Amino acid sequence: MSQTDSAPQNLETDHQHLVLAEGLVLDCGFTLAPVRIAYRTYGTLSSARDNVILVCHALTGDQYVAETHPLTGKPGWWSRLVGPGKPVDTDRYYVVCMNVLGGCMGSTGPRSARPVVPVDGVGAAEPEPWGTDFPPVTIADMVRAQALALEQMGIERLFAVVGGSMGGMQVLQWAASYPDRVFAALPIATSPFHSAQNIAFNEVSRQAIFADPDWHNGRYWDHGQIPARGLAVARMMAHITYLSEDALTRKFGRKVRRDPFSPLAPTSLFGEMFEVESYLRHQGSSFVRRFDANSYLTITRAMDYFDMGADSDGDFSGPFRGTNTRFCIVSFSSDWLFPTSQARLLARALNAAAANVSFVEIESDKGHDAFLLDEPDLDRTVRGFLSGAAEHAGIA
Amino acid sequence: MSQTDSAPQNLETDHQHLVLAEGLVLDCGFTLAPVRIAYRTYGTLSSARDNVILVCHALTGDQYVAETHPLTGKPGWWSRLVGPGKPVDTDRYYVVCMNVLGGCMGSTGPRSARPVVPVDGVGAAEPEPWGTDFPPVTIADMVRAQALALEQMGIERLFAVVGGSMGGMQVLQWAASYPDRVFAALPIATSPFHSAQNIAFNEVSRQAIFADPDWHNGRYWDHGQIPARGLAVARMMAHITYLSEDALTRKFGRKVRRDPFSPLAPTSLFGEMFEVESYLRHQGSSFVRRFDANSYLTITRAMDYFDMGADSDGDFSGPFRGTNTRFCIVSFSSDWLFPTSQARLLARALNAAAANVSFVEIESDKGHDAFLLDEPDLDRTVRGFLSGAAEHAGIA
Repeated sequence: MSQTDSAPQNLETDHQHLVLAEGLVLDCGFTLAPVRIAYRTYGTLSSARDNVILVCHALTGDQYVAETHPLTGKPGWWSRLVGPGKPVDTDRYYVVCMNVLGGCMGSTGPRSARPVVPVDGVGAAEPEPWGTDFPPVTIADMVRAQALALEQMGIERLFAVVGGSMGGMQVLQWAASYPDRVFAALPIATSPFHSAQNIAFNEVSRQAIFADPDWHNGRYWDHGQIPARGLAVARMMAHITYLSEDALTRKFGRKVRRDPFSPLAPTSLFGEMFEVESYLRHQGSSFVRRFDANSYLTITRAMDYFDMGADSDGDFSGPFRGTNTRFCIVSFSSDWLFPTSQARLLARALNAAAANVSFVEIESDKGHDAFLLDEPDLDRTVRGFLSGAAEHAGIA
Repeated sequence: MSQTDSAPQNLETDHQHLVLAEGLVLDCGFTLAPVRIAYRTYGTLSSARDNVILVCHALTGDQYVAETHPLTGKPGWWSRLVGPGKPVDTDRYYVVCMNVLGGCMGSTGPRSARPVVPVDGVGAAEPEPWGTDFPPVTIADMVRAQALALEQMGIERLFAVVGGSMGGMQVLQWAASYPDRVFAALPIATSPFHSAQNIAFNEVSRQAIFADPDWHNGRYWDHGQIPARGLAVARMMAHITYLSEDALTRKFGRKVRRDPFSPLAPTSLFGEMFEVESYLRHQGSSFVRRFDANSYLTITRAMDYFDMGADSDGDFSGPFRGTNTRFCIVSFSSDWLFPTSQARLLARALNAAAANVSFVEIESDKGHDAFLLDEPDLDRTVRGFLSGAAEHAGIA
């Protein structure tokens, strides 16, 4: 990763946020207070406050759903789907998205300053980041923080909760934790539990970060560094799991190019590199400039612990019994990280809970990433489900 | 990776070997000489020298096929399949297995001493390992070295060549490079080309090694270290790709245990770890004690460059036209690293080349690793194919 910059970047811009002064009690028992939640909104809240759609982001996403990102300068991660006249129509709905608890785009997380505790009334040391002392959070903790933030915004009920991947986990948790507040739920490319294979990939990501000496046991700020190499390796590996073999073959195949860092002669057999390698290196090196390594550790752990069947002996229908929420589950045929088989388990569980549920598997060769990419079938499904639900909800 | 030992290990025991004094010209144009090839044999060479089976090993395998490994103390990697009365029957066949060129179990590779070139007749510096200056090798180079070594052993023709994964690549290369010397070929869990996805995984492995400061740009011996953390991360990731989601779920599911390295209280939500994590950490830490990081770089690169269609515009049948070799291709239904679809491409190409070919997809949920594990269908297939071929070859 000689191309990556291991100097620290200032990622703390002045993100729009609110503060939960009393914080919340986490699943681990720790009371985290105060809690800051960074968020963005799009569209107009109706006078009846009945047109709110909460969009939940995935592992490395953030609250900048439908506008240029202030740090990367790139379009919002779901600007294809969210905006005026789009499937999640901001002319009609009031869209809210929050950076998850444990994140690094303005919400309280490992990079936030740890509250200073005065010792013997004598004052206290200089505040410093939580780092790896940040308490472990769960998907349920993320959702609880979102619910408190929405209450503070004067929003008691959600017309819909929508999200893909880890965002889909939050959608399911919302429906389970607050069944009376969620009219419609749209979990996309997700699962009611994190599989052994996905835990394994996350663990390798974490070990790659731990292996980087610039990580300094999580206190990299002490050294003016970031664990850029380890985080880049983690991202590169994860990126493979977001694609499909077909997508990689279609995009890159076995195409080669000159390796600009190779000391070998241009004619040398090994003086070139495969395009897929160049692409992955770029993915790794650009990621480390926008994401905090300790947040990556915290959030992957939250995903690993996600299991909707944990309290009901593996029965995923348990948390949904008696629900009135309308569900639309979406999976993609080539997604091997959150395969259709796992979405089907969810669909069966919701059926067993007598829920109102539809299930769409979209044919795509783009892998898990399909939920972020140009998939007209996804657009149609989201638009159709929300419109139908809006009619039933009596939203103008 | 706090459990792994980053001190160097002495991996150079006195492996049985022969020396190719004149070496060979590699595909990259470099003449590598002399070349040392470490090997093991099992069974008895017939007086007609017509009962030789060459077994080719995979990326991290070696020549200790059917006996206790001198370094790890574990059974030979294919002792299930190779031995007296077993499918590759050493009562009947003379089995040869060689450590690949570029390897680290006694054959010439990056850890071998670089030949010292006298400067101005004044003598020369102390010999040191090749390290990353070791010339790039290809699967065809590995096979050429094996052919020269066999000639030196007085063996001109092979009754059969057998191997899985990268071993299967060598099987295909043997049949293509030396069609008149191979009576039967048994490529298992392999492909006629390395896919973009597999190149991508290999590249992440390499970047994990490069990211380890103990790698020291490949000159880790200068510092009395090995890049244990990077190599362990590479191995952990690769290990996931050798298994299947079903195999991981069956073996580990979401079972948790205490993390012995966690400072958290036993009652803490995050004071435990998933069993799959513990398993992967063990895989990583045990691997670094037996394998050289620079060999890992060299051999993964050789796999990436493997493409039987490279000289025939992507037509995999090109190298096999006019062949008299009998082929039996084996794939496993849950292998997603070398999926059945790639074996099928190979079968079609061999059919198009009018070769004598059979193709067996074995139902298994064990993933790519199935070729090394207890799979009675594999035993039956190997035994049956070799017996039938032996009858046609007129071997007693």
